[in-house]
Amino acid sequence: MIIAVKRGTPEQETRQFAAELEQKGVRVHYSQGASQAVLGLVGDTTSIDEEALRAHHLVEKVIRVQEPYKQANRLFHPEDTCIEVLGPDGTARLVGAGHIGIIAGPCSVESPAQITAAAHAVKDAGAGFLRGGAFKPRTSPYSFQGIGGDGLPLLLEAKRASGLPVVSELMDIHHLDLFREVDVIQIGARNMQNFTLLKELGRCGKPVLLKRGLASTIKELLMAAEYLIAGGNSRIILCERGIRTFENYTRNTLDIAAVPALKKETHLPVVVDPSHAAGISWMVPALAKAAIAAGADGVMVEVHPNPEAALCDGEQSLTPDAFRALMGDLRRLKEL
Amino acid sequence: MIIAVKRGTPEQETRQFAAELEQKGVRVHYSQGASQAVLGLVGDTTSIDEEALRAHHLVEKVIRVQEPYKQANRLFHPEDTCIEVLGPDGTARLVGAGHIGIIAGPCSVESPAQITAAAHAVKDAGAGFLRGGAFKPRTSPYSFQGIGGDGLPLLLEAKRASGLPVVSELMDIHHLDLFREVDVIQIGARNMQNFTLLKELGRCGKPVLLKRGLASTIKELLMAAEYLIAGGNSRIILCERGIRTFENYTRNTLDIAAVPALKKETHLPVVVDPSHAAGISWMVPALAKAAIAAGADGVMVEVHPNPEAALCDGEQSLTPDAFRALMGDLRRLKEL
Amino acid sequence: MIIAVKRGTPEQETRQFAAELEQKGVRVHYSQGASQAVLGLVGDTTSIDEEALRAHHLVEKVIRVQEPYKQANRLFHPEDTCIEVLGPDGTARLVGAGHIGIIAGPCSVESPAQITAAAHAVKDAGAGFLRGGAFKPRTSPYSFQGIGGDGLPLLLEAKRASGLPVVSELMDIHHLDLFREVDVIQIGARNMQNFTLLKELGRCGKPVLLKRGLASTIKELLMAAEYLIAGGNSRIILCERGIRTFENYTRNTLDIAAVPALKKETHLPVVVDPSHAAGISWMVPALAKAAIAAGADGVMVEVHPNPEAALCDGEQSLTPDAFRALMGDLRRLKEL
Amino acid sequence: MIIAVKRGTPEQETRQFAAELEQKGVRVHYSQGASQAVLGLVGDTTSIDEEALRAHHLVEKVIRVQEPYKQANRLFHPEDTCIEVLGPDGTARLVGAGHIGIIAGPCSVESPAQITAAAHAVKDAGAGFLRGGAFKPRTSPYSFQGIGGDGLPLLLEAKRASGLPVVSELMDIHHLDLFREVDVIQIGARNMQNFTLLKELGRCGKPVLLKRGLASTIKELLMAAEYLIAGGNSRIILCERGIRTFENYTRNTLDIAAVPALKKETHLPVVVDPSHAAGISWMVPALAKAAIAAGADGVMVEVHPNPEAALCDGEQSLTPDAFRALMGDLRRLKEL
Repeated sequence: MIIAVKRGTPEQETRQFAAELEQKGVRVHYSQGASQAVLGLVGDTTSIDEEALRAHHLVEKVIRVQEPYKQANRLFHPEDTCIEVLGPDGTARLVGAGHIGIIAGPCSVESPAQITAAAHAVKDAGAGFLRGGAFKPRTSPYSFQGIGGDGLPLLLEAKRASGLPVVSELMDIHHLDLFREVDVIQIGARNMQNFTLLKELGRCGKPVLLKRGLASTIKELLMAAEYLIAGGNSRIILCERGIRTFENYTRNTLDIAAVPALKKETHLPVVVDPSHAAGISWMVPALAKAAIAAGADGVMVEVHPNPEAALCDGEQSLTPDAFRALMGDLRRLKEL
Repeated sequence: MIIAVKRGTPEQETRQFAAELEQKGVRVHYSQGASQAVLGLVGDTTSIDEEALRAHHLVEKVIRVQEPYKQANRLFHPEDTCIEVLGPDGTARLVGAGHIGIIAGPCSVESPAQITAAAHAVKDAGAGFLRGGAFKPRTSPYSFQGIGGDGLPLLLEAKRASGLPVVSELMDIHHLDLFREVDVIQIGARNMQNFTLLKELGRCGKPVLLKRGLASTIKELLMAAEYLIAGGNSRIILCERGIRTFENYTRNTLDIAAVPALKKETHLPVVVDPSHAAGISWMVPALAKAAIAAGADGVMVEVHPNPEAALCDGEQSLTPDAFRALMGDLRRLKEL
Repeated sequence: MIIAVKRGTPEQETRQFAAELEQKGVRVHYSQGASQAVLGLVGDTTSIDEEALRAHHLVEKVIRVQEPYKQANRLFHPEDTCIEVLGPDGTARLVGAGHIGIIAGPCSVESPAQITAAAHAVKDAGAGFLRGGAFKPRTSPYSFQGIGGDGLPLLLEAKRASGLPVVSELMDIHHLDLFREVDVIQIGARNMQNFTLLKELGRCGKPVLLKRGLASTIKELLMAAEYLIAGGNSRIILCERGIRTFENYTRNTLDIAAVPALKKETHLPVVVDPSHAAGISWMVPALAKAAIAAGADGVMVEVHPNPEAALCDGEQSLTPDAFRALMGDLRRLKEL
Repeated sequence: MIIAVKRGTPEQETRQFAAELEQKGVRVHYSQGASQAVLGLVGDTTSIDEEALRAHHLVEKVIRVQEPYKQANRLFHPEDTCIEVLGPDGTARLVGAGHIGIIAGPCSVESPAQITAAAHAVKDAGAGFLRGGAFKPRTSPYSFQGIGGDGLPLLLEAKRASGLPVVSELMDIHHLDLFREVDVIQIGARNMQNFTLLKELGRCGKPVLLKRGLASTIKELLMAAEYLIAGGNSRIILCERGIRTFENYTRNTLDIAAVPALKKETHLPVVVDPSHAAGISWMVPALAKAAIAAGADGVMVEVHPNPEAALCDGEQSLTPDAFRALMGDLRRLKEL
């Protein structure tokens, strides 16, 4: 951490400030420039509060050299993490460390017939996980909110019928009991910085699919993962799903560069959700292929047996046929 | 609501689609253009799901003419709403409908001495509400997280000592009991679309200060307020606190136009938080004055007896002296 | 084009307004809703000024159904456009309609040795075009500004030596004479809406590589292309090179979805510049592969014989070895 | 300037690199941290190319402490600059250093009657400058492009008739002759980084109103001003006019914080254009008042004798009556 001291500060004051900083457990290098002094803090600065420093009357600028995430940081954990999930059929599904994970299914669980049809369709096409939401975050209180607690038994039935492990979004920590048989817990974009939720999930042994917030930086996504790891849970799959920008052709702007960026910064697996990023189904295959080509460890794609009849997000869902065609393309890409 | 039908759709199919739509309780006007047909939906379209429509195979575009918020909409409630809060000193504080509310205090409650000193300082300068956080959302799990449940008794003591009603942020609905004597519950920017929280607070009679999310549009803020009103609670103060943009001179970009926009769209009072928007204390007075000049019903300002010693956000806190000077300026502005 | 008329407008006034609109050469459908009237304009509305309409005292909202670009629009020109450029070696290089164009070379021409070495290196690796800037747009007046008019002869010498056609950026229309032997004229992101330049280039027969502006929407890029076509020049290659967002891990955010979006909206070929988007060379290969996987008609990549010695943008340049490896990957991708 | 050297670099290599840097005319402080070395460059680093440094194989990070603008920097020129323009009536109009400049008039010059009516109206209301565009940048080639060279004589006639100095936008440096009697040359947002234009205007003695680009940072605006000053012209008025963000309620997002930010960073006067920022006339007064309250040295407002008949941007123009009312409010604000 580097601190530029305000111009005109007497040397003695700067040296005293440096001494105070050293009491926080770091060493301080003093360097006197032409117009101002610069202090270099050496040692573990993870717990030093940048904002508090910035408020100090002698400080002009504070610059971090080391990243504030530690356990998610590839620097301190160079090997790829691989998330392993055992399906009800006894087969292990892997994501990360060279294993591509394909998560597919409808935005929300609507009926036994719908979710079971979806499960079989995505399994036949080669998906490794079934997704399906029971609880749905919706912008309007008047929109369909998911079928709630009633949806999970249907999802679990589809799990047993298809043999696929399931991914579902948790919005309220008090529903955790309902999620006992859910294999991967999804944290949605709007909850990426719901720290209350993150702290609780840190104490739970289940894998977490953590979606990047619409206005969250790559580093904030890593800090959210750090909350989970700091709590004891490092079974995390990161998910890029588009950020909010001025461009409104697509619902959000898929930040494809987040894939190589995250792969460099962290050992955790990274998947991409092209369906929510684009918001329009005809664009999903192009983005899914781009994701795998950029090095993603998987994709999460919305597939609905009958998108037009979908109660939610039908506009962005693939038909089973379109998904099957996409899987063929992804398989060939993976072989490269 | 207007639907542009895909080019080349046979008229008969379009007419059948129109008939299906009429079964949802709206009337449909059919208009045949040179290259495509356009359907106009008339009646209450609030509950019609735009996204489901967009997924229909005949639909090219869906355009809403009416806004999807209803109870927050000034169209259906032309008079300004005024939020009245009774202080422990028996004085009512008002925000909205011509009354300017000034909320001030430290980012977080740190100690009895700190919060009580802050309370007296802001009251003496003319503030109407004391703010102070016990639970703090922090990007890093290693940063100071607020003193939690221990902070509320200190805040309430400062409330009694100063006579000011208090505002504090709620992050977990299960803390609601602890907030019994808190006068205004703050929902932070990161929780603006925590719909679980919004639904619960809709059932609680307390005024809510609802902060705009960093990546939320003005309309989404109004939809979040609609969640509260739909749940039964219309005692809402909206708060503009900056949005995330490419500009990084300030922490966020204060969207000053949100003030006149919200005043036009809704009857709810609108305040501005210049401290979180700027992230740098020297800029706070300029932004606070701009807010009042633009028509805001108040401001929420961070004031700390000793910003340099603050455990959180000291960089953006005013000293009591600077706050007193600002209050003088705001009073003169208000007189205009 | 659809016009929502303000609530409470007497029917007679609306009908008179509709009659005025019909005098502009369109037909107007009148539709009376529950609370307001809606007018549908049918016919060629390309030249109707939306903004003028919005200022009319009876108008609440104006919505375009048809896109305002016409000649660039795939709707009116369904077949892919292929740009053909004849190299000095007599070989035609193609971009679009299934042909992948690879443009590579240094950010700026620095010396005869540098540009000739770069030309041979990129040709050997399989590139179809050599890029090299003589005039450089730089944020700071104190940064290296390119070697200007002296650079073009060096670029042309490299063209002859390597047999590759060349691409170079034009910043001032009065340099057009100097560009006589330049094969493709590049319009940089900052000049995408330099309409003076676009109008002049519309009159010039040379192919234009048109880069998307940092804050330009996909539709604005198409409108900029429309300026060129309206002027008589439809030999255009569109180039996605990242947009400005809040994320600062990369220099800009590559909008990978712009590739399928542009391929759908227009018949013009689309290439991607991963070097300027990322701003960091290690990320370039991942983004280039994503671009081709998403359906781009080519990429433009910075390659420098010795990136560390580059006078400009060395940070984002590949070495010849890294470029050769990338070309191998792209070739395999293309075969899919 | 501070350079973090890559981890694991042998000390000897780092010291040699430091020695090379010293040959560029700066002194280098070497500081060895726990895991990496940090170099501090002392002296005038304005001309050191950050990007070239970043490409160096030993460099992990480069951080500037000093800003790269010098002559626009308040640090080296603490007193406010005041721009003085002599009107044809012999009265000097001042902007900056405590003088509020009000620039008003139509978006574009349409006819002798229109521009003269506008000139008298804004003068009577108290404006100090008349604005009017002859050349208009328009997104679509099919939109009204301004009346071009024919417009300037009409503007100059209105100048003589009203006694007000005039402001008009220059888009092509080869029109400079036509602008001989134009008092202030406006550089539009899309041309803020048209460096060809900036360099030429640096050689011209006329005051320049430099508008911030839609995707330009505050620092880039200052660098654009630095181009003008480096060329010899320091008669510059900076203009904040909104940036592009995800919010689409307004045309752009007025960055009100740019006002105090620019006033701190530079000695140049700063005005605000609320008309282009909002894009909707009813919002202009609120934003204009916010601008003055935030410390702006003036505003530039669109006023049209008959906004509904405007050929361009009528939607955002005030009527003369609305402008007169606004001027009364601004006068009272200024007295504070």
